[in-house]
Amino acid sequence: MEHVKNYLEANKDRFLDELFGLIRIPSISSLSEHKPDMLRAAEYWKEAILKAGADKAEVIPSNGNPVVYGEKMIDPKLPTVLVYGHYDVMPVDPIELWDSPPFEPEIRDGKIFARGADDDKGQAFMHAKAFELMVQTQSLPCNVKFMVEGEEEIGSPNLKQWCLDHKEMLHADIILVSDTSMIAQDIPSITTGLRGLAFMEVEVTGPNRDLHSGIFGGAVANPANVLAKMIAQLQDEKGRITIPGFYDDVLEISPEERAEMAKAPFNLEQYKKALDIDEVHGEDGFSSSERTGIRPSLDVNGIWGGYTGEGAKTVLPSKAHAKISMRLVPNQDHKKIARLFEDHFKAIAPPYVKVKVQELHGGQGYVSPITMTAYQAAELAYTDTFGKKPVPVRSGGSIPIISTFEEVLGIKSILMGFGLESDAIHSPNENYPVFNFYKGIETIVHFYQHFTNLSK
Amino acid sequence: MEHVKNYLEANKDRFLDELFGLIRIPSISSLSEHKPDMLRAAEYWKEAILKAGADKAEVIPSNGNPVVYGEKMIDPKLPTVLVYGHYDVMPVDPIELWDSPPFEPEIRDGKIFARGADDDKGQAFMHAKAFELMVQTQSLPCNVKFMVEGEEEIGSPNLKQWCLDHKEMLHADIILVSDTSMIAQDIPSITTGLRGLAFMEVEVTGPNRDLHSGIFGGAVANPANVLAKMIAQLQDEKGRITIPGFYDDVLEISPEERAEMAKAPFNLEQYKKALDIDEVHGEDGFSSSERTGIRPSLDVNGIWGGYTGEGAKTVLPSKAHAKISMRLVPNQDHKKIARLFEDHFKAIAPPYVKVKVQELHGGQGYVSPITMTAYQAAELAYTDTFGKKPVPVRSGGSIPIISTFEEVLGIKSILMGFGLESDAIHSPNENYPVFNFYKGIETIVHFYQHFTNLSK
Repeated sequence: MEHVKNYLEANKDRFLDELFGLIRIPSISSLSEHKPDMLRAAEYWKEAILKAGADKAEVIPSNGNPVVYGEKMIDPKLPTVLVYGHYDVMPVDPIELWDSPPFEPEIRDGKIFARGADDDKGQAFMHAKAFELMVQTQSLPCNVKFMVEGEEEIGSPNLKQWCLDHKEMLHADIILVSDTSMIAQDIPSITTGLRGLAFMEVEVTGPNRDLHSGIFGGAVANPANVLAKMIAQLQDEKGRITIPGFYDDVLEISPEERAEMAKAPFNLEQYKKALDIDEVHGEDGFSSSERTGIRPSLDVNGIWGGYTGEGAKTVLPSKAHAKISMRLVPNQDHKKIARLFEDHFKAIAPPYVKVKVQELHGGQGYVSPITMTAYQAAELAYTDTFGKKPVPVRSGGSIPIISTFEEVLGIKSILMGFGLESDAIHSPNENYPVFNFYKGIETIVHFYQHFTNLSK
Repeated sequence: MEHVKNYLEANKDRFLDELFGLIRIPSISSLSEHKPDMLRAAEYWKEAILKAGADKAEVIPSNGNPVVYGEKMIDPKLPTVLVYGHYDVMPVDPIELWDSPPFEPEIRDGKIFARGADDDKGQAFMHAKAFELMVQTQSLPCNVKFMVEGEEEIGSPNLKQWCLDHKEMLHADIILVSDTSMIAQDIPSITTGLRGLAFMEVEVTGPNRDLHSGIFGGAVANPANVLAKMIAQLQDEKGRITIPGFYDDVLEISPEERAEMAKAPFNLEQYKKALDIDEVHGEDGFSSSERTGIRPSLDVNGIWGGYTGEGAKTVLPSKAHAKISMRLVPNQDHKKIARLFEDHFKAIAPPYVKVKVQELHGGQGYVSPITMTAYQAAELAYTDTFGKKPVPVRSGGSIPIISTFEEVLGIKSILMGFGLESDAIHSPNENYPVFNFYKGIETIVHFYQHFTNLSK
């Protein structure tokens, strides 16, 4: 496929420039002041799809941020690939840890540094450019649809309804997604499993106002101390989550399958060194890969209460808060887990505080069987472009909407992610190697060809 | 003493106006951007003392914010009262909970609402006005000195050295302080004991950057979860602090003395209702008054880590922090306790995190014997103006500098505080009843008279 390389080479600078234009729009979905940026990012995508060669593209309203839809139907008898991506990004705090402004993309050491460079502007935009390449070189082998949403980072709260409302329009044979990572630039991999997510916020209230910690300290329960104690109780000494019923639906993986998974390359010393930690920590009896791949987890994503400014303030706070999320394995139901969490958190609250529990968002886990046509086509595509067969891996991350697609549209997804763990998504200095951007475009083009051939 | 009431009546509006002028200066000592306000507040005090009739008053530099000093020496053979107060105030967060701007004093329901209305602008300013009253009515019975500092709310880190440098100048028979509270407007009380304070800040570091909680959650220790667990371990199920050696120097109070203290009025139902809590909580085996009066305590004054903004961010934070203070009883040494805390906190840190411990400030506890002349003079003064004998009480609060005065200057303090628990000091909507302001001025004038008489 010489035309692929040639077109890429001839247009590579423009491809990056166009991606940078998208990145410069600070489309942070969780902060309401960025509402206008969401629309700008959606319009940018619409124009990009149209210019690439779509028959039509539009920004379609949802109950939240709008969804960009576009399509090129060349023959109804040919297979249809529905590309899914998102134009929204995570917040940038703590901003002071960024080495360059998060919305001014900059290339250093062969990597694009910016919020969204990988997740998911860089990865999703590869599809716009792969599509352009195929259209412009007259090599598009099948029908293509695009669905690019603006609420993935807040749990896609409105996309399910939007899919229900546009079910006919979205008809396709496979959903193609680049929003995951691969093991290394020389070890391609395909994500075959995702964890589900139950994201909660809790509030613990003690006295009705902030008190002087001298005058009241010791006599009135401090909600920050109580919250700490309640969080501590959520996990036992073996790293297991103590919520009653939490593990009921967790499928145990057979020793044989665990042995197979253990063959994936993993260097514990390198892992610890990269994170600058002396020891890893997790559930007893499981390896690090298993702890994120096949086991659920519970993390405090944020905690706050009392005086957190410079210096000392001897306050006994009225309230303390935490954002707590649980990553779930595919057979766990996030709604059930959220309910179990709420019941348990209220049950362990001592009588001297009041507790509020709120579910911020959630999503089910997902498994992508390696026997499906799209997986086999992807395997061939990576083999073409990377020179080796990709490894199937279960990721610890969640893309809650993927299981919703299966439920609502009845379509499976193939997760061709080209990110790296070192891309620092959701963190300061998020980045995406330029190599992966171009390699991804190339691999995607190969996928379309193989998928069309294997579907015949 | 008819002249006292007459002068008060004739000048009461001006007294409030002058206090409001002081309150309007946002002299928050813990926030460095308020440095210029510290100087303005000090100058305001200097002018107030001079106008009231001092022989001299000046703003004297210290290694931190300056100290206002003033004096009127009428006869070296007469006793000398050294008035201590502070012109700095606490921060105002959370600002959204204030019903009126914190630095625009407003009278509602007979109370002055503003940051510093009580602590310590309102209370300290009573002394300026009592002094003016005595000078202007030719009734000042003894010598007076003023020392008004600007770093009390951050633990008076530079006043000890300043006192050492000005020891001769500060020579006096008693230090007179209004920076505590009394039981109620119809139950006057004098604070005879103060708790000490060890104020610490801790930082727990896990991975070297914020991580994606899906990709790493369950495999890498989360410093916010670890911090919660460590804080939970600092107190046991009986509400006792678990730091080894922590109680070694706590003096046990005899059953007889506890029985005597139990006679002070305390209504548990009212206390709970005022704070809107269903139950109180503290160390087993002690009453609420004992828990703050004669027992040490440990409180989280602030906790923060991860994403604390609007919505959800699935981050596994790199760091989590807490400000933790311990209130100490008089025989405990704050430096020793800070060391014990640091050793223990580091000892309980699991190997998968790194821990930093810093002492922000500290101070010793203090006991004011009820047998001293100044106590007896104060007792007579309250009896004159309130019509009943004041109750001696041990406060849970700390004024670390009081024990330093005794150590450095060899002078005892008498704590004539006119605040109320409902004044919400250090909290939103701090207030000070106008009644207490005027009644305090009157009582202070009576104190000077009795103290001079009893000292003869």
